[in-house]
Amino acid sequence: MSSELSPTNGFEQLRRIETSKVFQGAVIAIIILSALTIGAKTYDMPPLVEQVLSVLDSAITLFFLIEILFRFSVCADKKRFLLDGWNLFDTLVVIGSLIPLDNSEAVLLGRLLRVFRVLRLVSVVPELRFLINSLLKAIPRMGYIALLMFIIFYIYAAMGSMFFANVDENLWGDVAIAMLTLFRVATFEDWTDVMYATMEQYPLSWIYYLTFIFLTAFVFLNMMIGAILEVMSEEQNAKQAQQAHDERDEITRQLRAVQQQLQELTREVAENSRGR
Amino acid sequence: MSSELSPTNGFEQLRRIETSKVFQGAVIAIIILSALTIGAKTYDMPPLVEQVLSVLDSAITLFFLIEILFRFSVCADKKRFLLDGWNLFDTLVVIGSLIPLDNSEAVLLGRLLRVFRVLRLVSVVPELRFLINSLLKAIPRMGYIALLMFIIFYIYAAMGSMFFANVDENLWGDVAIAMLTLFRVATFEDWTDVMYATMEQYPLSWIYYLTFIFLTAFVFLNMMIGAILEVMSEEQNAKQAQQAHDERDEITRQLRAVQQQLQELTREVAENSRGR
Amino acid sequence: MSSELSPTNGFEQLRRIETSKVFQGAVIAIIILSALTIGAKTYDMPPLVEQVLSVLDSAITLFFLIEILFRFSVCADKKRFLLDGWNLFDTLVVIGSLIPLDNSEAVLLGRLLRVFRVLRLVSVVPELRFLINSLLKAIPRMGYIALLMFIIFYIYAAMGSMFFANVDENLWGDVAIAMLTLFRVATFEDWTDVMYATMEQYPLSWIYYLTFIFLTAFVFLNMMIGAILEVMSEEQNAKQAQQAHDERDEITRQLRAVQQQLQELTREVAENSRGR
Amino acid sequence: MSSELSPTNGFEQLRRIETSKVFQGAVIAIIILSALTIGAKTYDMPPLVEQVLSVLDSAITLFFLIEILFRFSVCADKKRFLLDGWNLFDTLVVIGSLIPLDNSEAVLLGRLLRVFRVLRLVSVVPELRFLINSLLKAIPRMGYIALLMFIIFYIYAAMGSMFFANVDENLWGDVAIAMLTLFRVATFEDWTDVMYATMEQYPLSWIYYLTFIFLTAFVFLNMMIGAILEVMSEEQNAKQAQQAHDERDEITRQLRAVQQQLQELTREVAENSRGR
Repeated sequence: MSSELSPTNGFEQLRRIETSKVFQGAVIAIIILSALTIGAKTYDMPPLVEQVLSVLDSAITLFFLIEILFRFSVCADKKRFLLDGWNLFDTLVVIGSLIPLDNSEAVLLGRLLRVFRVLRLVSVVPELRFLINSLLKAIPRMGYIALLMFIIFYIYAAMGSMFFANVDENLWGDVAIAMLTLFRVATFEDWTDVMYATMEQYPLSWIYYLTFIFLTAFVFLNMMIGAILEVMSEEQNAKQAQQAHDERDEITRQLRAVQQQLQELTREVAENSRGR
Repeated sequence: MSSELSPTNGFEQLRRIETSKVFQGAVIAIIILSALTIGAKTYDMPPLVEQVLSVLDSAITLFFLIEILFRFSVCADKKRFLLDGWNLFDTLVVIGSLIPLDNSEAVLLGRLLRVFRVLRLVSVVPELRFLINSLLKAIPRMGYIALLMFIIFYIYAAMGSMFFANVDENLWGDVAIAMLTLFRVATFEDWTDVMYATMEQYPLSWIYYLTFIFLTAFVFLNMMIGAILEVMSEEQNAKQAQQAHDERDEITRQLRAVQQQLQELTREVAENSRGR
Repeated sequence: MSSELSPTNGFEQLRRIETSKVFQGAVIAIIILSALTIGAKTYDMPPLVEQVLSVLDSAITLFFLIEILFRFSVCADKKRFLLDGWNLFDTLVVIGSLIPLDNSEAVLLGRLLRVFRVLRLVSVVPELRFLINSLLKAIPRMGYIALLMFIIFYIYAAMGSMFFANVDENLWGDVAIAMLTLFRVATFEDWTDVMYATMEQYPLSWIYYLTFIFLTAFVFLNMMIGAILEVMSEEQNAKQAQQAHDERDEITRQLRAVQQQLQELTREVAENSRGR
Repeated sequence: MSSELSPTNGFEQLRRIETSKVFQGAVIAIIILSALTIGAKTYDMPPLVEQVLSVLDSAITLFFLIEILFRFSVCADKKRFLLDGWNLFDTLVVIGSLIPLDNSEAVLLGRLLRVFRVLRLVSVVPELRFLINSLLKAIPRMGYIALLMFIIFYIYAAMGSMFFANVDENLWGDVAIAMLTLFRVATFEDWTDVMYATMEQYPLSWIYYLTFIFLTAFVFLNMMIGAILEVMSEEQNAKQAQQAHDERDEITRQLRAVQQQLQELTREVAENSRGR
C-alpha cells in the first residue's frame, strides 16, 4: 500500500507471489511437463527430440531448484519449513534430480529419481495433500491386523515349504518364496494350478488351501468392516450427537431454572400465608 | 370438458396422449424391438429374414423420428426441451440412426449408432433416468482419488518401462503399455506370470508388484469407505437429525413459555402480598 | 388332560407330535441322509451298496410322502396349507421324487429331482427359512440396477460382436456369446487374453475393455453402497429413532400439562387477589 | 517394601517379574527368534548352521517350558489358569515342541508342531489376543449363512457330478471333487475353462455356471451387508443412544418434579384462599 520499496515490503510482495494462483498454476504445469518428459523417454525417439528432452529436463531441474530456494527464502519461519514433511520431500526430490543423466553410471538412478518428481503434484495440490494425510491416518488402525495377517502367512508358508518343497521348488522352495506363493493364492491368481500340483502328492492338501483362503478372507472382511465402523464412529455421528447432547443440556438447564423459580414462588406464597 | 374442438383443446389432447401409459408403453416396446433387431443382426440369417429386419429397421427409425418430432411439438417450452440433456441425447441417437445401412461405406458407423438406440430405454424409463442421475452425482467425489490413482499408475508405469522394457517389449515397451499391464496386475489377472518373467532378471522385482498391489488396494479400499460414509452422512441421518432437532427446539420454546408464565405469576403473587 | 380318547384329543396329540422337537429332528436327519445318498451315488460303488442305496432311496421317498400327508392331515386350515409357498415346494419335491430310478428313460430326471430334496432342509429349519425370506426381500431393490447392467452388457455385446466377430468367432460370434464373454471380462477371468487378441487387429480396443470394466465396477460399487444404505435406513436406526421420538413426545406432553397447571394456578391467584 | 524375605513377598516379587515389560519383551523376542529358526530351516544351510539351529531349538523349547511352568507357579488361581483357553493353547504348543527333531520318524510332526510356536505371539501380545477374540465372536453370526452356502454348493455339486462327470473326471468325478471345482468357480479362477469344456457337450451349461455365480455372489453380498449392519447396531450407536435415552429420562424426571412442585403450590394457594 505504501510506494516505498522497503525490504519488508519486497518480502511481502514475494510472499504474495508465492501464494498467488498464477505461481501455483505455473508450478503444476511444470510438474505435468516433467511427467510428460519422463513418459516420453520410454518411447524410441529421433535424436533431435531426445536432445530437446535433455535440455527440457535441465530446465525443469533448474526451475524446481529455483522454486524451492525461492519458497525457502520467502518462508518466515525457516525452522518450521525444514521440519514440514512435504517440504523435506520436495527438497529430496529436487536434490535427487541434480544427478546428471549424461553420466552413464548413474543414469538409471538419475532417471529413477526423476520419476518421483511426478509425486510433487501431491505436495503442491492441497486436495491431494489432504487425501494423502487422511490415508496416512488410516495406517495405524490396520497395524495389528497386518501383523496378524503376517503371522497367518508365515505359519502357512513354513508349513508349505516343509511339505511342498519337493513338489515345486520354484513355488515352495523356502519360507520367503512360499509367502509370495501364498500371496498369489490369496489374490486367487491361478491358485488351483498350485493346488492341483500338490494334490497329486498330498491328496488332502486342498484343506491347506481352503483353510488359508477362508482365514485370510475372513480376517480381511473383518478388517474392512472394522475400518468402516471406526471411521464412521469418529467422524460421522460425532457432530450430530454432540449437538443433540448440547441441546438436551440446554433443556436440563432451563428445567433447573424453572424448578428454582417454583421454589422461590412457593416460599413467597408460604410467607404470604404466614405473614397474613 | 367443453365439446368444442378449439386448437388449445387439440393441443391438450395431444399432450395427454404423450404422457399416457399406452404411449409410453408403445415407445418402450419399440425400443426393445429395436434392441432385438440389433441383436438379431449379429447372427447369420437367411436373406428373407435379413430383408424383413431391414424394413423393420427403417420403420423403427421412422417411428423414433416421428416420436421425437411429436414430443417436441407437444412441449410447451421449446427452449427447455432443447436444453434438457435427455432430449438432446434422444435427438442425437435418432439423427445418428438416419444413416442408411445400404450404403456400404458408412454401414459400420450406421450399425454402431443404431446400438445406442438401446440407451433410449434409459431416457424413457423414469426409474433408470433417476438411477443414472444419482450415478452421475457420484462421479465428482471420486475425482481426486482418481487423480491420485493415475499418479500412482504413472509413476509405477514409468519405473516399469524403465527397468522391464527389455524383459517383455509387449508388456513394458512404453509408459502407455506399462499402464495397461499395471491395470491388469491391479485386477489380479495372471499378474504372477508378469512378475515371474521380470523376477528372472530382477529377483527383487516382487517388491515392485507387492507395493503396487498394496497401494492400489489400500487407496481403493479407502475410496470405497469414503464413498459409503459420504453418501450416508448426506442422505441418511440428515432427515432424522433435523426432526430430532426440531422436536428439541419445540421443547425449548415450551420451556421458555413456562418460565415466562412463572415470572408473571411470581410478579402477581408479590403484588398481592404487597397490595395487602 | 382328560383321559377320554375323543377324536379332537387324537387330533391334538397328532399336532403335538408334528411340532415336537423329536419329529423335527427326525425329519432333518432323514433329509441329511437323503443328501448323503445323493452324494454317494456320484461315487463308483460295489453292486451291494448300490442296492442298499436304492432301497434306502425308496424308504426316504416313502417317508417324505407319509410326512407331507401327515402334516397336511394335521393342519387345521387346509387352504392355507396349500397356499403356503414352502408347503407347495415340499409337495413338488416329494412328487418329483416318485419318479422311479429303475426306468432308464427318466433316470436322469429322477436323480435330478432327488437333488432338490436337499433344499427341503431350508423349508424345515426355521432359521434358514427366515434367511431365504430376507434374501428374497433384497431382490426387488436390485431390479432396476440389474436392468441397467443388462443394458450396458447388451450395448457392449452388440458392439463387440459387430467389430470382433472376425477375430474370434467363439468369443464374439453373436450377441449372446459376446454377453457371456463380457461376463467373463467382468469377473476379470483371463480378460487380458481376450483383449490382446482383439488389440492385434484393433490396437485401440483396450478402450472398449477399460470403459466396460470401469462402467460395470462403478455401477456395481454404487449398487452395493445403495444396498447397504437402504437396509440400514429401514432396519437400523428406525427403532432407535422411533423410541427417541416417543420419549420427546412424552416430554412435550408433560410440558403442556405443566403449562396448563400454571395457567390454572395463575387464574386462582388472580381470583384470590380479586376476591380479597 | 519390607526387607524381610517372607515367602509371600517372594511370590509377590515373582509375580511382579511375570507382569513386567522386560519379561514380556523377552518372551516376545524368543518367540520371534523361534519363528526365525523355523523359517531358516526351510533354506539349505551349511552343517554348522544346522547344528547351531538345533541347539537354539532345544534352548527355545527349554525356555518355553520354564516360562509356562513359571507362569503356572506364579498364578494364584491354578484352576482358572488351566481353564483359560490361551494358557491351554500355550501348554499344548510347548508339549508338542518336546518331540525331538533327531528322531527320523516323528521329525515332520515335530517340525510341524514347532510352527505353531509362532502363534504364541497371539497369546502373548494383548492387542492380538483382543483381535482374535473379536474375530471369534464374529463366527456364530455367519453360521446359518455358511450352512446355506454349503447347501447351494452341495446341490450344484450333485448336479455337476451327475451331468459333467463324463466331460472331465478330474473336475466332476464325484460330489467332493465337484464341490472343490465349484469353489474354484466361485473364486473366478479359470472358471471359463471349466465352462467351455462342459459347453461343448451341453451347450446350455452356461446357465448352470451363471446361476451358481449369481447365487453365491448374492448370498455373499447379503452376508457382508448383514455383518456390517449387525456389528454397527450392537457396537456403534448403542452407547450414544443409551446416553441420549438417559438424558431424556433425566428431563422427564425433572419435569415430573416440576409438576409435583406445582401441585403442592396450587394446593397451598387454594388453602390460603380458603383459609382467609
